[in-house]
Amino acid sequence: MTCIFCAIRDGQVPAVRVYEDDRVIAFMDINPLTDGHLLVVPRAHAETIWDLGDEDARAVMSVARKLAHALRHALSPDGLNVIQANGRAAHQTVFHYHLHLIPRWVDDGKHLAWTPVPGQLDHIRQLGQHIAAAVGQVT
Amino acid sequence: MTCIFCAIRDGQVPAVRVYEDDRVIAFMDINPLTDGHLLVVPRAHAETIWDLGDEDARAVMSVARKLAHALRHALSPDGLNVIQANGRAAHQTVFHYHLHLIPRWVDDGKHLAWTPVPGQLDHIRQLGQHIAAAVGQVT
Repeated sequence: MTCIFCAIRDGQVPAVRVYEDDRVIAFMDINPLTDGHLLVVPRAHAETIWDLGDEDARAVMSVARKLAHALRHALSPDGLNVIQANGRAAHQTVFHYHLHLIPRWVDDGKHLAWTPVPGQLDHIRQLGQHIAAAVGQVT
Repeated sequence: MTCIFCAIRDGQVPAVRVYEDDRVIAFMDINPLTDGHLLVVPRAHAETIWDLGDEDARAVMSVARKLAHALRHALSPDGLNVIQANGRAAHQTVFHYHLHLIPRWVDDGKHLAWTPVPGQLDHIRQLGQHIAAAVGQVT
């Protein structure tokens, strides 16, 4: 069975990309918990943190930091959760390592034990363009 | 006011340490959601991901990966959640950047919107010794 994130990486499945380099891609979550919810994904297929190489682990967090700044530029959230799941027991549903970046607002009423619900694609696309544009402003 | 994690780093407050290097320390969470719940913390004080330097971001995830392997050696969890909070709106309570590593077991009945409850210190200390010993077995 094809890995959906490998298919996104290879351009076989569309996604709203906000960042890419030689090791990492980042794109909008289509089941967002909040506005700006995005995923940071190593290009190399690795199911979990136990399969991930050290260089990819480092690159993923470096990109997460960069995108945290871009999210702040673009959306001015009050907070940000960074979360990552390994194994079904930890609620992993796509078996290609990915870090969630979830902007938070005071009294947004959300919590981290969430059930994924599809978002509005046009809205996600607009947010993604806004975030991608902000990446360039991050020093 | 003194930062509690800076005080732990400096040995002024006791903690069950499982790992340290020149950039990062890791110690057991005393309010564990599950057995083996630990924190990965940059030595340099940074409140959130927005204050964290790029090299520290990279180092934190490299150590998280290493400790994920140590946790697997020591405790054989079914899964692992990696989570990190920035800002009160994201449920941050200690304002020194820290990554939670939370081992998970099938049907552990836990979820990621948790209320911290103090654990048994003897039990935490035993787990910490077990995990620290396993770090040496990680390649």
